[in-house]
Amino acid sequence: MNTPPETIAALLFGPDRRGLVAQVAGWIHEGGGNIIHADQHRDGEEGIFFQRVEWAPAKGKLESQMASFETLASELGMNVRLARSSDRPKMALFVSRAAHCFHDLVLRWKAGEFRGEVACVISNHESLREASAGYGLPFYHVPVNPGNKAQAEEKQREILKGNGVDLVILARYMQILSEEMLDKMGCPSINIHHSFLPAFAGARPYHQAFRHGVKIIGVTAHYVSAELDAGPIIQQEVTQVNHRHGVSDLMRKGRDLEKAVLAQAVRWHLENRILVYNNKTVVFD
Amino acid sequence: MNTPPETIAALLFGPDRRGLVAQVAGWIHEGGGNIIHADQHRDGEEGIFFQRVEWAPAKGKLESQMASFETLASELGMNVRLARSSDRPKMALFVSRAAHCFHDLVLRWKAGEFRGEVACVISNHESLREASAGYGLPFYHVPVNPGNKAQAEEKQREILKGNGVDLVILARYMQILSEEMLDKMGCPSINIHHSFLPAFAGARPYHQAFRHGVKIIGVTAHYVSAELDAGPIIQQEVTQVNHRHGVSDLMRKGRDLEKAVLAQAVRWHLENRILVYNNKTVVFD
Amino acid sequence: MNTPPETIAALLFGPDRRGLVAQVAGWIHEGGGNIIHADQHRDGEEGIFFQRVEWAPAKGKLESQMASFETLASELGMNVRLARSSDRPKMALFVSRAAHCFHDLVLRWKAGEFRGEVACVISNHESLREASAGYGLPFYHVPVNPGNKAQAEEKQREILKGNGVDLVILARYMQILSEEMLDKMGCPSINIHHSFLPAFAGARPYHQAFRHGVKIIGVTAHYVSAELDAGPIIQQEVTQVNHRHGVSDLMRKGRDLEKAVLAQAVRWHLENRILVYNNKTVVFD
Amino acid sequence: MNTPPETIAALLFGPDRRGLVAQVAGWIHEGGGNIIHADQHRDGEEGIFFQRVEWAPAKGKLESQMASFETLASELGMNVRLARSSDRPKMALFVSRAAHCFHDLVLRWKAGEFRGEVACVISNHESLREASAGYGLPFYHVPVNPGNKAQAEEKQREILKGNGVDLVILARYMQILSEEMLDKMGCPSINIHHSFLPAFAGARPYHQAFRHGVKIIGVTAHYVSAELDAGPIIQQEVTQVNHRHGVSDLMRKGRDLEKAVLAQAVRWHLENRILVYNNKTVVFD
Repeated sequence: MNTPPETIAALLFGPDRRGLVAQVAGWIHEGGGNIIHADQHRDGEEGIFFQRVEWAPAKGKLESQMASFETLASELGMNVRLARSSDRPKMALFVSRAAHCFHDLVLRWKAGEFRGEVACVISNHESLREASAGYGLPFYHVPVNPGNKAQAEEKQREILKGNGVDLVILARYMQILSEEMLDKMGCPSINIHHSFLPAFAGARPYHQAFRHGVKIIGVTAHYVSAELDAGPIIQQEVTQVNHRHGVSDLMRKGRDLEKAVLAQAVRWHLENRILVYNNKTVVFD
Repeated sequence: MNTPPETIAALLFGPDRRGLVAQVAGWIHEGGGNIIHADQHRDGEEGIFFQRVEWAPAKGKLESQMASFETLASELGMNVRLARSSDRPKMALFVSRAAHCFHDLVLRWKAGEFRGEVACVISNHESLREASAGYGLPFYHVPVNPGNKAQAEEKQREILKGNGVDLVILARYMQILSEEMLDKMGCPSINIHHSFLPAFAGARPYHQAFRHGVKIIGVTAHYVSAELDAGPIIQQEVTQVNHRHGVSDLMRKGRDLEKAVLAQAVRWHLENRILVYNNKTVVFD
Repeated sequence: MNTPPETIAALLFGPDRRGLVAQVAGWIHEGGGNIIHADQHRDGEEGIFFQRVEWAPAKGKLESQMASFETLASELGMNVRLARSSDRPKMALFVSRAAHCFHDLVLRWKAGEFRGEVACVISNHESLREASAGYGLPFYHVPVNPGNKAQAEEKQREILKGNGVDLVILARYMQILSEEMLDKMGCPSINIHHSFLPAFAGARPYHQAFRHGVKIIGVTAHYVSAELDAGPIIQQEVTQVNHRHGVSDLMRKGRDLEKAVLAQAVRWHLENRILVYNNKTVVFD
Repeated sequence: MNTPPETIAALLFGPDRRGLVAQVAGWIHEGGGNIIHADQHRDGEEGIFFQRVEWAPAKGKLESQMASFETLASELGMNVRLARSSDRPKMALFVSRAAHCFHDLVLRWKAGEFRGEVACVISNHESLREASAGYGLPFYHVPVNPGNKAQAEEKQREILKGNGVDLVILARYMQILSEEMLDKMGCPSINIHHSFLPAFAGARPYHQAFRHGVKIIGVTAHYVSAELDAGPIIQQEVTQVNHRHGVSDLMRKGRDLEKAVLAQAVRWHLENRILVYNNKTVVFD
């Protein structure tokens, strides 16, 4: 099998107007590029146009096309984010005691499922230090308590910076990132919430679900924003439950969903497939 | 195929104690009955025992066993509800303009899927009069507006009484039953809510879901209680959606869920499979 | 709400080559058209390119663009099928005794879910004559038996021709269409098979599934081809079952799947969303 | 939290007759036991009765009740299998190169999800030796080739015996166990097949599925029998796919199903919830 050629993936959005598809496709074609994937969406109500287009540039023109495409987008009045297929964004896993999402993400990474690298593990507990070492991953213990939160987050930001982290993953991390942290850390973060948001936001969602007698439980992967558990939803999945399932069964069934949904959200993010607007997402899968 | 023998289905619940299963099974066995189905559940936290047991009584003993089983249950300190397999509870369908649940329930009833009879249709609109007539069903137009609600509900109760109704089904009926109506109408009612409760209770749930950018929509069948959309949940189902789905797509996809989930809840109710306690349900399916 | 402008939807496929997306989009843009939806797919293994593109032509240019787009496609070496949004293809429903898919399709059509018209009902039994009349649909009874199959199919073709039918839907029709019928009837046909094909092709699939003790049952909508139950699959859905479900339960649960999946396949076909090649389908949903 | 009392779980089946439920429940009650869970099933067609009953025996009577319950079952003409909640059956994992089910089972075991112990890993490849060591598990490399199969299987049986193995799990093990091996190894084995059986039995099922253009792929956990991929099905799950998914996507999506379904089957087996008859399973979940 020969290596597939390097590609550029562009995520665009902006005010809808006639001819956008033709202009972008024409530009790529005239520059000698070959479109590998193109998908677009039009929000009729808001009059916004969204596009993901991925192309293999002509030989030796990757660098220059990255730059000139930005110009094109700006001329078209579009917002753009570009990524090349050889990019390997660095991820930091924030964890507490729960181990299932941690192991799941690391094993998928090692199996080659992600277009990115796990760079380090940050935890407010010691319990996953040894497992991290077993995977060859740097582990940073940053205890957090009501009195030291600001300093702890400063410490975390230093670690992120030191490791060149591009994406923070809250893999059942049981602390809330402060608004200041979100502002200053300089990269997006994805959280897995163990309920079908917006139902059961906040603490102990499986207990809330059990008390309500719901017949379905779910989980939600979302970008983290300042409002707790209210950031743009990336993916959700659910499973059927019944009266025989106690809270611990809900937790066990939920763990399987959490692993699958968080991994899916991370995969999409790393492949530059997610556009955010109006606190919602467009996922070009 | 010969007719299956008539059976009695008992739904019991009460404080858990040693020997309940043996005592009930022994009583049936000694009376010459044959257990067809038995299922039980124990809520460990609350210390409550639930059972559904269905048996074919010895020939000629059905009437007497109905009576004496009530005595047994009371001796065991259990709450009981009894039904015989030949019972055909009568249902009233409350509808407004939306026709899909109406047609679906009537067609399933005509296809023999329900252990009960559709007795009449009550609506605050005229639009389903002709379709009801086509099915041979009495149709009652009872307009409801802010000024006449009490009288309208009185009228509805008269219709229910006149038709000997045992179960009210709100098949996308767009009016809220008052607390007085629920108290006085003398039979339970099942509603289909077009969201995954407790998310999006109240009006226009598909619009709420769309605005939140959820990736899954759902519907909920529940018994109606005085608190809006907060009665005991009987069944829920969901389906995946994405950014391509506008509000009208959510509605179309939702209609299929609404039909399936409401029919399932009605079927379970008619087969005496649902126990309610603590605003939750135990469904012996 | 003002009427949306009339659109043209083109389904293209052919050998992949550089610039196809740009050429098609450019052609539409230069002609003053506005692209409403565009989706493409590339089968890397086979080197085939697939595209669905839907656009609103400039005022008064719909007719001429229908013609000249065919020329464009042929210059690009692509196979094309065109449809305009105002087209209302006519459907014939072939039925036997089972009524659920019949009612479901007719009610969805009356509710406006389909971009097409139900033109007539053809059956080898009398049982749905009255229901058809109730819906205002012409009903043709064409008995089929081993001795008269060729004449019966000739009769059916006359009815199709007389009603100007564009699509045949086998809505649980219990006869196999002969190869001659498929060749001569002059329009495609969609069948709903009550199993998860290729498992359980042929007769009595629920009985086959029950005997195998499967934990999931499914249904399959597919285009009909000469080989029994082996035509291109359009859509499949499944549901979980367990040891408590007898054959009649599988049938009841299956009916709900059959209705949903057949309706989905018909909707996609009518919206010109399905391309067939290599006995598989590409569905641009 | 105090330890729950030790329980006995009995799985019974045999010819149906009046009074079985009462006799079993009565026996347990008279012996001072407390029924924790009871579920039964009657195969009407075959006239067979199935039951799972779990009870906490009176203090100090566990041993004697294990013995005398066998006598009771035999008097009732029933086949019985007994297990106590403190039993910790030993499992051997058979693996080849694919690592996902291996890691998944071991991590679930370490997280306390299984009522049993992973005793050892047996592989025809070296690739999981280091990972096994990391988990503290003995790893046995037993190469298999056409010329040495009989000796290799003898070697495997020695390892099973030496480790006191009660259950063999084929966790994507790419060799077929011979009939002799199944006869002589003295314990049941569970396999995960990466298709929705009976569709796509045999080799390379994802390639078969892709070629057929199915819209759903599935996996099947089953007990291994002499006929390839035809043993009693324990559990199946599926996921939707479309034309965009190539073979490698089917494999990736399939891996998640394989992990979940194999783990579920193992959990049920270890909790003594599965009865096999007529090459089908009754699962009391």
